[in-house]
Amino acid sequence: MKTDLPDGFPDFSGVEKAAARIRSRVHRTPVLTSRSLNEMAGAELFFKCENFQKVGAFKFRGATNAVLSLTEEEARRGVATHSSGNHAAALSLAARNRGIPAYIVMPRTAPAVKKAAVEGYGGNIVFCEPTLEARESTLQKVVEETGAVFIHPYNNPRVIYGQGTAALELLQEVPNLEAVLAPVGGGGLLSGTALTVRAVSPETRVYGAEPAGADDAYRSLHAGLIIPSVHPRTIADGLLTSLGSLTFPIIRELVNDIITVDDEEIVRAMRRVWERMKIIIEPSSAVPVAVALEKKLPVPARRIGIILSGGNVDLEQLPW
Amino acid sequence: MKTDLPDGFPDFSGVEKAAARIRSRVHRTPVLTSRSLNEMAGAELFFKCENFQKVGAFKFRGATNAVLSLTEEEARRGVATHSSGNHAAALSLAARNRGIPAYIVMPRTAPAVKKAAVEGYGGNIVFCEPTLEARESTLQKVVEETGAVFIHPYNNPRVIYGQGTAALELLQEVPNLEAVLAPVGGGGLLSGTALTVRAVSPETRVYGAEPAGADDAYRSLHAGLIIPSVHPRTIADGLLTSLGSLTFPIIRELVNDIITVDDEEIVRAMRRVWERMKIIIEPSSAVPVAVALEKKLPVPARRIGIILSGGNVDLEQLPW
Repeated sequence: MKTDLPDGFPDFSGVEKAAARIRSRVHRTPVLTSRSLNEMAGAELFFKCENFQKVGAFKFRGATNAVLSLTEEEARRGVATHSSGNHAAALSLAARNRGIPAYIVMPRTAPAVKKAAVEGYGGNIVFCEPTLEARESTLQKVVEETGAVFIHPYNNPRVIYGQGTAALELLQEVPNLEAVLAPVGGGGLLSGTALTVRAVSPETRVYGAEPAGADDAYRSLHAGLIIPSVHPRTIADGLLTSLGSLTFPIIRELVNDIITVDDEEIVRAMRRVWERMKIIIEPSSAVPVAVALEKKLPVPARRIGIILSGGNVDLEQLPW
Repeated sequence: MKTDLPDGFPDFSGVEKAAARIRSRVHRTPVLTSRSLNEMAGAELFFKCENFQKVGAFKFRGATNAVLSLTEEEARRGVATHSSGNHAAALSLAARNRGIPAYIVMPRTAPAVKKAAVEGYGGNIVFCEPTLEARESTLQKVVEETGAVFIHPYNNPRVIYGQGTAALELLQEVPNLEAVLAPVGGGGLLSGTALTVRAVSPETRVYGAEPAGADDAYRSLHAGLIIPSVHPRTIADGLLTSLGSLTFPIIRELVNDIITVDDEEIVRAMRRVWERMKIIIEPSSAVPVAVALEKKLPVPARRIGIILSGGNVDLEQLPW
């Protein structure tokens, strides 16, 4: 498909190659439906269950694609990133699967459960002070000392391509979707989703779903430039980051709109999925569900695909 | 298969007929696996996910088979039962699906959430005092006044046959299981499972999994007669009842053994399923999982089928 994105910018062919590259390494997650949620939404909902993906999140797709795309020489020195969340766990496991080291820069104040997850997948944690500056300088130092390749959590074409494979599987399995919804934080999942949907099912509308308390993507899209996320406040702690120089242009060009929901709506949607579907999703996953259940689509859709991004929840601290 | 059960006793042909009868009315639930749980158990585990069944529990199979087996004339007057749990919800929905009334006798002290579930599925609740005597006399009165057919939660051949269809689907999908585990309360699920496994895969061992704090089935099996459940104490609140005159002989004849686990083991298993598999199971479902994860099988098995009986949990009161 022709777009106004610059030549050489990420496009759908990268998603297709990623799908072939990672196929044997990732789960082909199921697409579930729920009659009672359909009734609440007044539409047919098709849930792509990346909560069942390895490490419990779609992030494993992008990390695996990035790691498998490295040359032998690049790979030998390993990979590095700054993240304390799902990307850190995903990159650690993807690296271990290739037999190479992963260096994860993490604030020393990160929750013990997140440190344990990264260590459980074999990642090498490098602690830093909990400031943006310390994070970047520590990462820089790690890369210089080890020669590891920095794999950004979302502003990286290979990562974006990998994330787009979830939507590709969804579209292969469910025809005639009128809309596809994905949560948006840094925009890796949403931009990969948009590249895929525009190419495979051009009539299908693509929406980003964002917490009202972290609505920088919404404001960026409407302002026409990246507005950084400042002091975001939301239960959806996977969606706090700002868009990047790669994800923003793709989203601006290919996404129909960004729709926001407040935390009360997010928690309600999360609980409904737990109660009715008997599956565990994290708050970030509940954001697009809330958009559907609260009927916030600007153009009603009868068949809606929803990417459930992950299922990593602290079971000691549920939001109800 | 030849057994020593009396002629005319429930046998596998009833399960086969039930499978055909209910096929279009129940979900064919998925069989899930988890590499990390396999590692903990030292075996391959295959989880038959009845937590994804309608009303969130296998009980919908038996209730649907019982309701669909009624003649037109029987059906017209409706069905009745005493239960405040999954059977009550299942019978209510099965009756509504056939367009007939369901009368549910329930102690007036039952939790509001259980009343709401039955009402949500269209059941007519008849309250009684919270005693065994009041329950039976109230049921008797309802049956006399309405002409409804009493559908016992487990001591009913059609209910047993319906419950056996879960194991039938499991065996059709997963060959060469060395053992199948199902929780045991009144024994409807376990006896239906045993009838099925013995007929379809005679080499496969069948075990009941029971809470140590409600181990009447274990004691009954070893004593050779039904020992009632007296003051059971366990988190697995779906497994408090005693075996019945139909379920006990089937279990004695066809089940290899009953294995008990304590509540700490049950809660740990439940939490591991939530964390690793990202699915919601109720404590009763976690009982056979605990048997596998704690490696309590008397004869080790490399491939183990586990029936996850349901996923109805009060999300306000989690056991950790």
